[in-house]
Amino acid sequence: MLHFENDYNKGVHPALLQVLVETNQEGVSGYGTDPYTQSAIEKIRRAIKCHHAQITFLSGGTQTNQIAINSMLASYEGVIAADTGHISTHEAGAIEFSGHKVLTIPHQHGKIFAADIEQLLADFYADANHEHMVHPGMVYLSHPTEYGTLYSKAELTAIEQVCRHYQIPLFLDGARLGYGLASPESDLDLQAIAELTDVFYIGGTKMGALMGEALVFTKNNQPKYFTSIVKQHGALLAKGRLNGVQFDRLFTDDLYLELGRHAITMAEQLKEILQEKGYRFYLKSPTNQQFVIVKNEELTRLTEAGIAYGFWEKYDDSHSIIRFATSWSTSQADIDELRNRL
Amino acid sequence: MLHFENDYNKGVHPALLQVLVETNQEGVSGYGTDPYTQSAIEKIRRAIKCHHAQITFLSGGTQTNQIAINSMLASYEGVIAADTGHISTHEAGAIEFSGHKVLTIPHQHGKIFAADIEQLLADFYADANHEHMVHPGMVYLSHPTEYGTLYSKAELTAIEQVCRHYQIPLFLDGARLGYGLASPESDLDLQAIAELTDVFYIGGTKMGALMGEALVFTKNNQPKYFTSIVKQHGALLAKGRLNGVQFDRLFTDDLYLELGRHAITMAEQLKEILQEKGYRFYLKSPTNQQFVIVKNEELTRLTEAGIAYGFWEKYDDSHSIIRFATSWSTSQADIDELRNRL
Amino acid sequence: MLHFENDYNKGVHPALLQVLVETNQEGVSGYGTDPYTQSAIEKIRRAIKCHHAQITFLSGGTQTNQIAINSMLASYEGVIAADTGHISTHEAGAIEFSGHKVLTIPHQHGKIFAADIEQLLADFYADANHEHMVHPGMVYLSHPTEYGTLYSKAELTAIEQVCRHYQIPLFLDGARLGYGLASPESDLDLQAIAELTDVFYIGGTKMGALMGEALVFTKNNQPKYFTSIVKQHGALLAKGRLNGVQFDRLFTDDLYLELGRHAITMAEQLKEILQEKGYRFYLKSPTNQQFVIVKNEELTRLTEAGIAYGFWEKYDDSHSIIRFATSWSTSQADIDELRNRL
Amino acid sequence: MLHFENDYNKGVHPALLQVLVETNQEGVSGYGTDPYTQSAIEKIRRAIKCHHAQITFLSGGTQTNQIAINSMLASYEGVIAADTGHISTHEAGAIEFSGHKVLTIPHQHGKIFAADIEQLLADFYADANHEHMVHPGMVYLSHPTEYGTLYSKAELTAIEQVCRHYQIPLFLDGARLGYGLASPESDLDLQAIAELTDVFYIGGTKMGALMGEALVFTKNNQPKYFTSIVKQHGALLAKGRLNGVQFDRLFTDDLYLELGRHAITMAEQLKEILQEKGYRFYLKSPTNQQFVIVKNEELTRLTEAGIAYGFWEKYDDSHSIIRFATSWSTSQADIDELRNRL
Repeated sequence: MLHFENDYNKGVHPALLQVLVETNQEGVSGYGTDPYTQSAIEKIRRAIKCHHAQITFLSGGTQTNQIAINSMLASYEGVIAADTGHISTHEAGAIEFSGHKVLTIPHQHGKIFAADIEQLLADFYADANHEHMVHPGMVYLSHPTEYGTLYSKAELTAIEQVCRHYQIPLFLDGARLGYGLASPESDLDLQAIAELTDVFYIGGTKMGALMGEALVFTKNNQPKYFTSIVKQHGALLAKGRLNGVQFDRLFTDDLYLELGRHAITMAEQLKEILQEKGYRFYLKSPTNQQFVIVKNEELTRLTEAGIAYGFWEKYDDSHSIIRFATSWSTSQADIDELRNRL
Repeated sequence: MLHFENDYNKGVHPALLQVLVETNQEGVSGYGTDPYTQSAIEKIRRAIKCHHAQITFLSGGTQTNQIAINSMLASYEGVIAADTGHISTHEAGAIEFSGHKVLTIPHQHGKIFAADIEQLLADFYADANHEHMVHPGMVYLSHPTEYGTLYSKAELTAIEQVCRHYQIPLFLDGARLGYGLASPESDLDLQAIAELTDVFYIGGTKMGALMGEALVFTKNNQPKYFTSIVKQHGALLAKGRLNGVQFDRLFTDDLYLELGRHAITMAEQLKEILQEKGYRFYLKSPTNQQFVIVKNEELTRLTEAGIAYGFWEKYDDSHSIIRFATSWSTSQADIDELRNRL
Repeated sequence: MLHFENDYNKGVHPALLQVLVETNQEGVSGYGTDPYTQSAIEKIRRAIKCHHAQITFLSGGTQTNQIAINSMLASYEGVIAADTGHISTHEAGAIEFSGHKVLTIPHQHGKIFAADIEQLLADFYADANHEHMVHPGMVYLSHPTEYGTLYSKAELTAIEQVCRHYQIPLFLDGARLGYGLASPESDLDLQAIAELTDVFYIGGTKMGALMGEALVFTKNNQPKYFTSIVKQHGALLAKGRLNGVQFDRLFTDDLYLELGRHAITMAEQLKEILQEKGYRFYLKSPTNQQFVIVKNEELTRLTEAGIAYGFWEKYDDSHSIIRFATSWSTSQADIDELRNRL
Repeated sequence: MLHFENDYNKGVHPALLQVLVETNQEGVSGYGTDPYTQSAIEKIRRAIKCHHAQITFLSGGTQTNQIAINSMLASYEGVIAADTGHISTHEAGAIEFSGHKVLTIPHQHGKIFAADIEQLLADFYADANHEHMVHPGMVYLSHPTEYGTLYSKAELTAIEQVCRHYQIPLFLDGARLGYGLASPESDLDLQAIAELTDVFYIGGTKMGALMGEALVFTKNNQPKYFTSIVKQHGALLAKGRLNGVQFDRLFTDDLYLELGRHAITMAEQLKEILQEKGYRFYLKSPTNQQFVIVKNEELTRLTEAGIAYGFWEKYDDSHSIIRFATSWSTSQADIDELRNRL
């Protein structure tokens, strides 16, 4: 089977596996106090050029979103997000479960815009009854978005300015951040993201780690006693080394960005192939996820051809939107074989 | 000042005040175990023709909505509601605070329809990823709605059938139920409401009580140990008699319905006056709340004329939507004077 | 039946009833923005000699405890309380329901002491694992306690100093505060309580109101957007006037303290009678609640004599602890008749 | 440094590492739907002789406790546990954070007993006010306990019978289950534990896995839509294979029990050494954790000798209780060297 269904179907990148093996027999302290975790934190601080960043390693995206949002909001606050945002749709209500409303605004190709955010905030404060309403207390966006699209530096800066004006934090979900940074269309780097956001995370699970996300507070704004908060959410790993060792390696020799570039190179070829073969794109994505509209019959054909794809959503009664994703683990051979089989 | 701003600006109906005075010196047991509460429960059971109904008196609408929804939903379930529903907009996130998402669908004049509810449920179960989503676990609607509109028996029956099919409860918020029942356009009575819903509440606060809502479970479906649940929400009054005495009187000699009819009679005159004076209606409401679109200058004029109205929302840059409400306490003199001053 | 079972079996004090009747037909604004509520706040500020106090009226003790505690604690914090404290035992887990642990320490006759509180705090900070533990974030005590006992000014000051040292707020539950203030053994007045605590509440439900508690933040420390917090808990009454009017009267002409003194005068006589009749006191209470140990056979005899008492707890297999309570509503005739019947 | 401070200071057992390496390049489906997870479930079912067991892999002990307890309790229920239980002390209030009180009873060497549990339950139901109290809805115990002690089959059966009688589930926290099963003093095997409990977990993190706990529902009693519940807690790993592959190997060729036996063999030698060297045991532990009381000066000496121990708690002003733990990773060489250095 050719695996293009998502970016988390393989195990761990060989370089990370190697350091896991090499460090396996060392006895280290638990709960993220080990030297690998400390080293990973330092390397990320340097990579994002934010030396006071406060960094915690967590296990997955929903957990990271829940902890970041829940720990930063007051009880009466909600989080502004795209109606297609991951927290709005595919986290089984993890944000509401922790007490907060997701205040949705319409998306364009998965993105939200400063003007719409500002309108929501202005309307809230203009409403005579706003004390009876959920207060907008944070902005959440994903970069790349759920549709693989990217914010430009200008767009992100505009959103940041609205947040500054209303004094609410900007949170960037970077589950696939590396694939965004490596895109030729991106004008944002890690430093810019650290500067423009109040908190963001650098995804590991979809970028070659067994699991792990690095949650970064950039403005000396990590909630007090954050370890207790993480523990209380059931998210503090006894063997914190597992995340520490992997992120330490991801941020050695620019591996994180290199993995991103590799996946994007593969995605460029994937796009060419899809175009050659006459597939109709659902939207133009500059990152590792490509969405095409196919006839429903095509779904069976792909499976029979041994091509794993991701089903995204129904397009109309006879068509579906499907996803092809490349990743750190996609090889040139995979791509070549895909060309043969499509 | 002429009070047309809402239906809760006066104290308590004289008949209720009288029984509060008469019973004041009696020593009774606490926490809703007093004889007045028991008598009120029996009278409501007879009025709704549901002898096994399980009834609890609570203090206000948001509290009642929160307890009903939170006690009936599983942790992973959300409640379907109109995007204009009270729980969606004006309860400061009380539903999310208790852990549940409000799954909104578009309204028409405050109402939601069986077809849209069914579509949401069908889409949910058809989605391959639905275990990663909030499960739709209940339908909430208000009757009359936030815009004063009413469901017909056919519309409510259609919604009930969708709920039956998907085995989720139907909850009717009756904060202004008496004003709905008394409308000439209503073809629903208390019995029909008890039969068609799984749980509903009979509003007292806006229907002549000092406060109080009667939450009614109609299908032997009151969550176990409901007193503990109410206590845990901080909603169990030591002097439960306060609600018991008032509802006992409201359901004596059909007072509840009589108060509804009075307000509707007043509202019919109000509508005539508004029409005579050339006001433009925002929508056609068959109950005690009337919404009109006025120039913003008119707002000042009304206030100067000693007429209290409810500001509803901005219509456009130069116009506002405002509400005039009658209630159990609106007198013919109030109406006549309004005609003079408008 | 002679009602000595508790202090909330009658309705409302006649003076409060009178103002409720007098103001009943006035149209006022809702949600606590009415002039009676504002007047009540001003009168309480004067009574407690704390002109910047932030005051909110709520409906009952559990609701008030839950909102005060939940709104002041961080998610990882718990509240220190006596193991017999109301929040520890008889609120159906309302504190835990809102996410916080009650950190219990042993009581003496319902009271807790500075030394034990300090020990708990010192142990917590000394524990190498304290980030894995619930942080003690507040001290809760009731005055009078659940056993009717009182803190001396010295005792309360000692607790306040521990709280200052560890920078955690001190919260005093005053469900029966008036009965404490009026006790001849009390050396605390409202001003001292306002000075020594960070937040406290003045109970109305057990002091002659139909319901209502005045929650007072004394150090400009009311959590931001407190109205939204109250709303979110389902605790914001549309007819806030109900509490406003009652507290406005309670704090006119020193009525609140007068009601306390009356109940204490009655309690002094009650104690004499119990002593004369040879009852064995469970403990020495200087307030309106008196606890005696009786043979189980006595329980039936009391009921047959038409005396309502409060069952407190099993003492041993053949004895029970029962409570006799006086209140604002206990008359000299009640006391005289009790002497006859006992 | 000789690592005796805990049982989670090394990485992963070589056999597990090997299968992680071997399966690393396979593309598998996510979220626990992969074939390794399915295989691991089947092997555990066979090992516990419970073919209908419902098994979910989670990341750590606190997360597992929180999800098991929160998903099984009604909102008004609490969980009975030893006052020294992990959920009572060292989970940063994770249980209360999810809304539930921990109802503590006194321990003996970390254990609780049927008689005390029954007393708590009987007292609860005998209390006239029990609807105002937290309902005891579950029993939690850890096996081995936090002090390394074990329940006998008779003791666990007695607790099970109390739970049956009161119809509440029994939950066994098996973070170190393998070390308990392998103890020569144990008369409980996996089958007995599956039969006697309603839900338990088989700890991986402390038994040779990188992380992972297998939560087992044994009575067809897994809460409905458990995947959604896990997702909502932020606990659903995209690469569920990580747990699946490890548990599949742990339950191949009896490795899990073998690792337990190894640690116990090492612990037997450790006990001998401690005894020889004149250490005073705090209590008699039959498993891998040994607690001794040492003079505070000894703490420095141990560190200087390169021996890592776990600080447990202060014993008195001049003594401390410390822990020495063996594990799957303790070698004969470690033990021999410990003998030299102690």
